Amino acid sequence: MNVLVISASPRTIGRTGVVGRYLKNSYDVELMDLAKNPLPLYTGEPAQAESEQIKDFRKKVLDADGIVLVSPEYHGAMSGAAKNALDFLSADHFRYKATAIMVCAGGGKGGINALGNMRTTLRSLYANTIPTQMVLDPVDIDRENDTLMEGIVPKVQGLMEEFFYYTQAGIEIRKAKAKG
Amino acid sequence: MNVLVISASPRTIGRTGVVGRYLKNSYDVELMDLAKNPLPLYTGEPAQAESEQIKDFRKKVLDADGIVLVSPEYHGAMSGAAKNALDFLSADHFRYKATAIMVCAGGGKGGINALGNMRTTLRSLYANTIPTQMVLDPVDIDRENDTLMEGIVPKVQGLMEEFFYYTQAGIEIRKAKAKG
Repeated sequence: MNVLVISASPRTIGRTGVVGRYLKNSYDVELMDLAKNPLPLYTGEPAQAESEQIKDFRKKVLDADGIVLVSPEYHGAMSGAAKNALDFLSADHFRYKATAIMVCAGGGKGGINALGNMRTTLRSLYANTIPTQMVLDPVDIDRENDTLMEGIVPKVQGLMEEFFYYTQAGIEIRKAKAKG
Repeated sequence: MNVLVISASPRTIGRTGVVGRYLKNSYDVELMDLAKNPLPLYTGEPAQAESEQIKDFRKKVLDADGIVLVSPEYHGAMSGAAKNALDFLSADHFRYKATAIMVCAGGGKGGINALGNMRTTLRSLYANTIPTQMVLDPVDIDRENDTLMEGIVPKVQGLMEEFFYYTQAGIEIRKAKAKG
């Protein structure tokens, strides 16, 4: 099982990166950090599709059996960097694949609109976004030790457990579809 | 009254650009075309805030009394380029200002999710997004003459008339607030 975590904050010092690194350190997953390796702005130009960086990004998502998308909430939606990354992709990259969505927000009721935005967009890419989703508030992040606070870990574990079940289910479905 | 139209497609050959140019040619508005003058990817770094391009962009929005945001729908949401542009802005740029939202979509039921995404994001920026909104399908665009098809023009006129009323209302509110 090949799982890709996309940390989709454009800020190198953001809390989203902490979540991405936590997942990388806790599970057998690959991490793509859009702050450390930013994608160019999507233009739709054919030359862009030929760039090594874009070919590599598309291949990584294509090769993944499941994708975890972690984004900060900016202005009631996923980051522009997150949406821009998804603009390079199509249903070919997501069909019959599980996706899990996590949002870093500022507290209060924040984060829910970004989750809704991500779910709608991933639906239009034909991903199977799992029902469990989560918002991580500043209180959930242990910045000093670059990890998560203990209290939030069981919720992340529950989400990841569900995600791996659905990722496996997607693998089975794609296998069945390939057989015809 | 100072009105800014943001054409928020990253594609130079897109239909969104046609809409932007139509508005520029039909009304007393300024046009900012994000395909012709792309913004960098937002990083939150202080150096970025000091760049002339970002200072100029922020000032244009700050000086506007009302903003028309035109975006293509990509994957059930506004373009990454549109969201990335908004990530540079805050409620300081939008409070007590009217915004109008228009989306270029591929036909069928397309475009509605992007309008919802734009409205939610502009709400979080404290803009007053007017009730009338519209989707422009390929059938509404006269690519050959780089303009709109005649049939859709009355709907655009209705939207713009409402938008100008609300933009004027916003001017009055800001004036009253400034007096205290």
